[in-house]
Amino acid sequence: RRAMTRAMGLLGLLLALFLVPAVLLSTGFRRGEPRTELPSEPAEWGPASDTVTEDSLWPLPQQLRTSSRQLQLVPGRFQLVHSAGSSAAGDCGLLLDAFRRYYGYMFGQSRRRKRGRGSHGAPAELPELSELHVVLQSPEPGCHVYPHLASNEAYLLTVAEPVAILKADEVWGALRGLETFSQLVHEDDYGTFLINESEIYDFPRFAHRGILLDTSRHYLPLKSILMNLDAMAFNKFNVLHWHIVDDQSFPYQSIYFPELSDKGAYSYNHIYTPADVRLVIEYARIRGIRVIPEFDTPGHTQSWGKGQKDLLTPCYNGEQPTGSFGPVNPILNTTYDFMTKFFKEISSVFPDAYIHLGGDEVNFDCWKSNPEVKQFMKKQGFGIDYAKLESYYIQKILDIVSSYNKGYIVWQEVFDNKAELKPDTVVEVWMGKNYAHELSRVTGAGFTAILAAPWYLDYISYGQDWKKYYSVEPLNFPGPEKHKKLLIGGEACLWGEFVDATNLTPRLWPRASAVGERLWSSRNVTNLQDAYERLTNHRCRMVRRGIAAEPLFVGYCPHEAR
Amino acid sequence: RRAMTRAMGLLGLLLALFLVPAVLLSTGFRRGEPRTELPSEPAEWGPASDTVTEDSLWPLPQQLRTSSRQLQLVPGRFQLVHSAGSSAAGDCGLLLDAFRRYYGYMFGQSRRRKRGRGSHGAPAELPELSELHVVLQSPEPGCHVYPHLASNEAYLLTVAEPVAILKADEVWGALRGLETFSQLVHEDDYGTFLINESEIYDFPRFAHRGILLDTSRHYLPLKSILMNLDAMAFNKFNVLHWHIVDDQSFPYQSIYFPELSDKGAYSYNHIYTPADVRLVIEYARIRGIRVIPEFDTPGHTQSWGKGQKDLLTPCYNGEQPTGSFGPVNPILNTTYDFMTKFFKEISSVFPDAYIHLGGDEVNFDCWKSNPEVKQFMKKQGFGIDYAKLESYYIQKILDIVSSYNKGYIVWQEVFDNKAELKPDTVVEVWMGKNYAHELSRVTGAGFTAILAAPWYLDYISYGQDWKKYYSVEPLNFPGPEKHKKLLIGGEACLWGEFVDATNLTPRLWPRASAVGERLWSSRNVTNLQDAYERLTNHRCRMVRRGIAAEPLFVGYCPHEAR
Repeated sequence: RRAMTRAMGLLGLLLALFLVPAVLLSTGFRRGEPRTELPSEPAEWGPASDTVTEDSLWPLPQQLRTSSRQLQLVPGRFQLVHSAGSSAAGDCGLLLDAFRRYYGYMFGQSRRRKRGRGSHGAPAELPELSELHVVLQSPEPGCHVYPHLASNEAYLLTVAEPVAILKADEVWGALRGLETFSQLVHEDDYGTFLINESEIYDFPRFAHRGILLDTSRHYLPLKSILMNLDAMAFNKFNVLHWHIVDDQSFPYQSIYFPELSDKGAYSYNHIYTPADVRLVIEYARIRGIRVIPEFDTPGHTQSWGKGQKDLLTPCYNGEQPTGSFGPVNPILNTTYDFMTKFFKEISSVFPDAYIHLGGDEVNFDCWKSNPEVKQFMKKQGFGIDYAKLESYYIQKILDIVSSYNKGYIVWQEVFDNKAELKPDTVVEVWMGKNYAHELSRVTGAGFTAILAAPWYLDYISYGQDWKKYYSVEPLNFPGPEKHKKLLIGGEACLWGEFVDATNLTPRLWPRASAVGERLWSSRNVTNLQDAYERLTNHRCRMVRRGIAAEPLFVGYCPHEAR
Repeated sequence: RRAMTRAMGLLGLLLALFLVPAVLLSTGFRRGEPRTELPSEPAEWGPASDTVTEDSLWPLPQQLRTSSRQLQLVPGRFQLVHSAGSSAAGDCGLLLDAFRRYYGYMFGQSRRRKRGRGSHGAPAELPELSELHVVLQSPEPGCHVYPHLASNEAYLLTVAEPVAILKADEVWGALRGLETFSQLVHEDDYGTFLINESEIYDFPRFAHRGILLDTSRHYLPLKSILMNLDAMAFNKFNVLHWHIVDDQSFPYQSIYFPELSDKGAYSYNHIYTPADVRLVIEYARIRGIRVIPEFDTPGHTQSWGKGQKDLLTPCYNGEQPTGSFGPVNPILNTTYDFMTKFFKEISSVFPDAYIHLGGDEVNFDCWKSNPEVKQFMKKQGFGIDYAKLESYYIQKILDIVSSYNKGYIVWQEVFDNKAELKPDTVVEVWMGKNYAHELSRVTGAGFTAILAAPWYLDYISYGQDWKKYYSVEPLNFPGPEKHKKLLIGGEACLWGEFVDATNLTPRLWPRASAVGERLWSSRNVTNLQDAYERLTNHRCRMVRRGIAAEPLFVGYCPHEAR
């Protein structure tokens, strides 16, 4: 299931044909090219500017060779174009949109456009790079479909005079290659855009690289979500895990059950309409990002109860209902009627092949207090093992969702509580304590796993905690290679208790970038000093592109946040 | 020196005349007025909206009486005006500017202006408040001068039909009263602006209520500094402690010594020109905020050395200079020639009566390594006590600054190292360990003190750490009342190692608001639940006014950050 094996398709062949006998250096052993002598500010002014290009690549490509030979790009002349032989040449709006976007990232924020010799007066002695040709090689490159777990994100990028070439099987690889190409372009102090001749062969180490956003503890305006998708693309993330509803609020506006948000949202301004949801999905799609919604049940559902009568379990004090409610009521047929209809809608609204069904942190106290639930337990022969009741519920939900041809992801408790899971269930490991052991158990049982536990980015602390996230080795758990292949990736989770539009971006970025490189780059890319320097530059690039990513440590960006 | 005694001037008299026998309740025992029944959204939608007005006052006034009787304000008709008898009536641009500003805060962000019955169609049954009359009573109310430590910030606010009256001796009290008045005004769900009839008598508990910003570890764009001054005014802070330069960079553009920033700033874009500095000072002044610059010597001066030859001490390894430099060189006459000229400029550029001279964290290693310094120590009879050398240097600096008729603030080490300080020295206590003991020692020696130690807001952690800042009782140190009067206030410090324009605002606010109330309100205002509710509302108000203050916990604002 991991991307590395998949990437060895057409491109692997290409690599063999084109690049032998040239030696592509593994990025674990990058060559220390001498710094090109450019006219520059005094060196003591600090870190981020006038570095050689590879010093700002993030995440680091799998294989990279750069030359000290520089080419110049003239914004008025430079073009990103479909190559004649590309299978996307005729009709690929997604790619045209990406061309426009990356043109803007490369040239839109010229610092010195009005100063010095300007962007059109480049030094005569430098050769020019006039075009980037993009070639998609698969007969079905994917312009009009959604990215999925098995999408091919590999690409091959050759930057040489006079034309750079970006080859990929699918459009998803082209998007990743465009990001890398844009990261290679840098502007010198006189407004000249430069790129070093380079060859890059790249593919992700893990296929599932996610960011979890929580829109229930605090509502996030659409603009925050879209801006986060931009930042995800800059870091080659490919999954938005949208923890859309929870106890605190139900901002998802359901088509079948509008009462859920009418009653369960914080206010009528704090909802996502069907049009909002479609916009998020399409904005993500054209950046090669999947949107996996999470509708967490049977716990974490207080807000559902406001708009859906009898959905939650009434809690009792002795013989008397207390007036408060617990998890979803698993003993009523009406519950499953509701869920059948609700997940039919969700399966149709969200195009991804997976839905996240939650299943975490179910508190049994209310179930235990309810006489009818107790009777049901007896009838089913569950004894006093409420984990069995939870599994009973979950299995029914899994069956419902399966019937809509969707795969599903669940939090680890569902596995821990021994629900009978279908073999294709994805288990997300989130508990911080001994997560390596849990990965062993989950993959040992033959299930696919996603790792979130070490990457709960809502836990903040003083100092450079990105190093902690960066230093995690996901495959560092006991088990044979066969089991390790079942770990398909990870997620950086920004739970929303203390996060809303005011602080989301600087709290998430560039801390999540550390997770991004861990999930994309080669296992041996672990040097913290090298990562510090590249990430410092990368965060300044994000700032230049409008993402208010916070600083790693003291220093400055040539182009500060406005 | 504390404000409470000063406030008992004209206004104390007034209070006695006007308000006896009416009983003004101490805010420690606020009356629980019944909530007015307004047309409202379902109550379960959450915390921040439709609360009674006093539930959003921050910091809480010293004395407050509110009625359940509501008046309406019609934006098209409501006016903030000088009262005929005011000593500022003829000519007070500062106040006119404040009128315009607060009109905008009150009515500018109407949520429902285009919905419902609109802001002009208020219910006929509500009486109207048509004007706020502002009366300044001192013959010299201060419109054209700078705020200072002894400024009078007390005010008396009476909200009753048909005209509210705000009385203050000086314009600084009027500014604080305008902030409070604007906090009393709230908009209901139909766009009607309402205020409860109220009487407030208010004054600060401490005279020095500061925010420290650090523009050396990271440069802060002017816009960030100005926005922070807005937020300070919303929280009744009155001192910007501008830690303007340090080891990492020297953004202050000196008139006499332009090389300091030419060489010592991060880049020529990362400087504060004389015009920038004037703008900050004036923007602060019209909000009643003093700007106290800190030029920290002899340590924390690496960036000074780049533009000023021979200013720093050359470090040695045995007989050989290492090429690196230590603190300011205290043994050369040229050092004092430079400082004399430099602080002449600073004394003239910054109008405040105080300059912060730093003096913290001086590392003696380099001095110890330098043969000439060692010889000087011998000659002076300092033995090997380098604290004596530091005091020798500091005393010369203090003499220089005194000669320009400036007072000075120093970090606690200067006191700890037994420098002979002039009696009017202000000592800032910053070391976290046993700061109460240090306050005893400093005030016991007769010096004025400022407390910063428990309020280092750059130290972040998960959860509601504002409660920790809020729960500090500054006077909780051993000593007689006479010594306690020497504690004139405190500062919330946001050191800049991990802070720049991307994350400054949400990291500082509303956490600093907790310090703001502690320094303004009565000692007995300590209820955390009450504070939580008011601060939640206050942070939403800051958001509505354009300050990206982060959330305290789960919930929402009616008007979210854009």
